[in-house]
Amino acid sequence: MEHLFPYDQLLSFTEKIFQKIGCPETDAAIAAKALLSADLRGIDSHGVARLTGYVRLWEAHRANTKPAIKIIHETPSTAVIDGDSGLGLVVAPFAMQVAIDKAKNVGTGWVSVQHSNHFGIAGYHAMKALDHDMIGIAMTNASALVAPTFSVERLLGTNPICVAIPAGSEPAFVADLATTTAANGKLEILQRKNLSAPEGWVQDKNGNISTNPHELKSGGALLPLGGDREHGSHKGYALGAVVDIFSAVLSGANYGPWVPPFPAYVPMPENMPGKGVGHFFGAMRIDAFRKADDFKKHMDQWIRRFRSAKTVAGEEQVLIPGDPEREMETERLHRGIPLLHSVAEDLNYLGERFEVQLIVHS
Amino acid sequence: MEHLFPYDQLLSFTEKIFQKIGCPETDAAIAAKALLSADLRGIDSHGVARLTGYVRLWEAHRANTKPAIKIIHETPSTAVIDGDSGLGLVVAPFAMQVAIDKAKNVGTGWVSVQHSNHFGIAGYHAMKALDHDMIGIAMTNASALVAPTFSVERLLGTNPICVAIPAGSEPAFVADLATTTAANGKLEILQRKNLSAPEGWVQDKNGNISTNPHELKSGGALLPLGGDREHGSHKGYALGAVVDIFSAVLSGANYGPWVPPFPAYVPMPENMPGKGVGHFFGAMRIDAFRKADDFKKHMDQWIRRFRSAKTVAGEEQVLIPGDPEREMETERLHRGIPLLHSVAEDLNYLGERFEVQLIVHS
Repeated sequence: MEHLFPYDQLLSFTEKIFQKIGCPETDAAIAAKALLSADLRGIDSHGVARLTGYVRLWEAHRANTKPAIKIIHETPSTAVIDGDSGLGLVVAPFAMQVAIDKAKNVGTGWVSVQHSNHFGIAGYHAMKALDHDMIGIAMTNASALVAPTFSVERLLGTNPICVAIPAGSEPAFVADLATTTAANGKLEILQRKNLSAPEGWVQDKNGNISTNPHELKSGGALLPLGGDREHGSHKGYALGAVVDIFSAVLSGANYGPWVPPFPAYVPMPENMPGKGVGHFFGAMRIDAFRKADDFKKHMDQWIRRFRSAKTVAGEEQVLIPGDPEREMETERLHRGIPLLHSVAEDLNYLGERFEVQLIVHS
Repeated sequence: MEHLFPYDQLLSFTEKIFQKIGCPETDAAIAAKALLSADLRGIDSHGVARLTGYVRLWEAHRANTKPAIKIIHETPSTAVIDGDSGLGLVVAPFAMQVAIDKAKNVGTGWVSVQHSNHFGIAGYHAMKALDHDMIGIAMTNASALVAPTFSVERLLGTNPICVAIPAGSEPAFVADLATTTAANGKLEILQRKNLSAPEGWVQDKNGNISTNPHELKSGGALLPLGGDREHGSHKGYALGAVVDIFSAVLSGANYGPWVPPFPAYVPMPENMPGKGVGHFFGAMRIDAFRKADDFKKHMDQWIRRFRSAKTVAGEEQVLIPGDPEREMETERLHRGIPLLHSVAEDLNYLGERFEVQLIVHS
């Protein structure tokens, strides 16, 4: 069962909760907007449903709501940032802005981040570049749920990559993808509906093919994009590995099986080699390559050619990366954001606890 | 049937053939080394087997063996290069060197290339960065063989991405992957052996699932990494699209269905929006982020942890990207490069035509 909540109301509620756990006003506003962008774009698993999780991280002293975020190393086109254990929702916008500023100066900017926490959806951060006529890139590592090809052990997170590319009269191209066959959020939907998962999404604790969406609770793992060796899972594994290395080995964050978990009740890994969660951001100024207008004219042509391709039976259109999320955003801004009953209850509980009102619209 | 050829002999032969079609000595040496790196690393489809194809491109006036390669736009961290219709095998090393030089100056370098031709394997170019304690990135677009998710039409090439990352006492991490489920070369092997392809590699001309490895000859298409929508083919499609846009829309090369074909007998597409084939290169200096020694120490730890992971039954070890190619290279440098009888015949024919001797060792 779901209730619809107006975006503004959820945003204001979330902002107030972040203030209550100690975020300065500006940070609370930044964090709330980043978090809610997931709900707007239809990535419900990463949105306000996680607000309680962020509060628990703070309670467990795993997230610092008053971080002194700072650049600890830099060159004209690069920086490493220490997030001081802040919310990724606050650290990531800071880092993306540094990337954008460097791109303004020398054409591109590349920022690796240590000592952060989960940053919501990669798309939100990468898309910040679009307003500056830049290509935006964002990636992050996450706690290990994914087994590399041939591995029984979980060694990588779902490690998403987003690349956002401006167009002219067409909407921007926004590819935002976990480097797994299916995101964990999709498994959670199957769990709730008691449906089985397609082959290629998960394996059991011994590495056998499984269609049980609950497999991760008993030692199973998500599979890298490709699913199995024959279908290119070594490529999905390699991409997830690149995200891990750019985000954490370059910055000094934790990598592989040592990335701190999001749920505060899960013990921290032992012998952690770095600090916190790692991210990586990039910004490339279009006119560092060619005139922005020329580029956009050709992006429009690219997009129209793909959108007008002849489709397979039963499908109306070839989609451009970002199409579904953009349509969802338009709809949800207008109609409201649907929350599961259990999520709304969690929010009401938070509201009571912190004395912040959440009006339920059904 | 296969014959073994010593690497040095093939290299010298290839170099001389490139000279015979007009390449200056230095360029011929550069091109031969780049081409043969595919054979050494076991990517036989992209190696000396294509030498005849490059000669035919030259004959068809589609490749210029005396190109005036030049930078047509730049900032401290970026450049766009006009390859003047040169062999990609020559243009790409030039461009990668520009990326490396820029990284020396400002931390990173990013180069988009127009007006080039096929460049061999991405791995060879990306790995050039390793000697400079840099991360190397290389990608290229290619003529359209791949149908995006829901499309019947072929709109993307196999568009590979390589990321090469230095380590300390461990060998470098080298992820070199086509953004498709399976490379075209693997289909060719199945064709020769008269075997069927696994589901998820190709579709027929109507977009139906097919296991016929000859499907591309009758209007079928390769599938993006993921295979179908349920297994994330929209992600493989998005990655291939990013490669296309970075390589061609940023540089002014041709993109999507307009990329010039490698086989010289295939007519050029109509209404081409740009110049030649496009590539994209990146170089990131490790110490633009953190001390190279620290980075390498942690890369070693990353690699060892993954390599020592518990494996699924029947597999000895979790591989690190680049492991199989590196082992192949060691073996083939020592034992020689096996060439199919038909490939050896093609080379002998080239040798006779251009009066360059190729001694056959069997």
